[in-house]
Amino acid sequence: MSDELYFEDFKLGHKFASMSSTKVSAQEITEFAEKYDPQPFHLDEAAGKSTFFKGLAASGWLTAAIVMRMRVENIKVHGGMIGAGVEEIRWTEPVRPGDTLRTESEVIALRPSQKRPQYGLVTIFTNTFNQRDEVVMKSTVKFLAPMRNA
Amino acid sequence: MSDELYFEDFKLGHKFASMSSTKVSAQEITEFAEKYDPQPFHLDEAAGKSTFFKGLAASGWLTAAIVMRMRVENIKVHGGMIGAGVEEIRWTEPVRPGDTLRTESEVIALRPSQKRPQYGLVTIFTNTFNQRDEVVMKSTVKFLAPMRNA
Repeated sequence: MSDELYFEDFKLGHKFASMSSTKVSAQEITEFAEKYDPQPFHLDEAAGKSTFFKGLAASGWLTAAIVMRMRVENIKVHGGMIGAGVEEIRWTEPVRPGDTLRTESEVIALRPSQKRPQYGLVTIFTNTFNQRDEVVMKSTVKFLAPMRNA
Repeated sequence: MSDELYFEDFKLGHKFASMSSTKVSAQEITEFAEKYDPQPFHLDEAAGKSTFFKGLAASGWLTAAIVMRMRVENIKVHGGMIGAGVEEIRWTEPVRPGDTLRTESEVIALRPSQKRPQYGLVTIFTNTFNQRDEVVMKSTVKFLAPMRNA
């Protein structure tokens, strides 16, 4: 799809796949965890062994942030992608050091914004896959897109 | 509340307030954006002027990550806080450089995990406030807590 999408350019069922995959390193996992989710299983492989995760796993919020970057890279909204909210996130498999993530998204709802008549609300569902095509995260988010003729 | 909570220790209506507030700097906003949400209004005050946000604002995913850290600091679950999913996030006001955030959370649902009988699912609703007591984010998340007698 072309750059600079307006609300009218989105159609129900439109699909967007990430153009590239993203490798998640142990360093990125631990750096993010030190700042935002300082728990043993996100900080250290050895300390994670005796936990639920049986080793080092990425914070789900790191996965969500990586998926936001892929969304911004793949869906170019005129004026930028302005998040309007999250309807659901489910973390279905751990993300491990060295995993490579890609996304497939689909437009599942469209409606004009009641609060901001110059914008519409786009709801997209995204599956995030690892290199074994296992779904590691399912998410449904809403963002604003400007009306072309506002 | 004491350290090391088990599922049985959580009660409907329990409230948790963040013990300290967190100041969000322009540097943290732009560093996070460079990695995970590279859009003009999250990267640069001047570039943000002509956008929806009329200046520099934190990525909503940065706010969500900061709130995760406050949650981990304030609610000590035995074995760690293992995210089971997000039911809703709404970003209600922009977070600006220099804003100071604090949270108030409440347990709104409790049930045993069907998939993992040794765990229960705790659902908490969190309001995140800035220094003017404006709500900047509302979120409802679920996490696992181990059964004491599992």
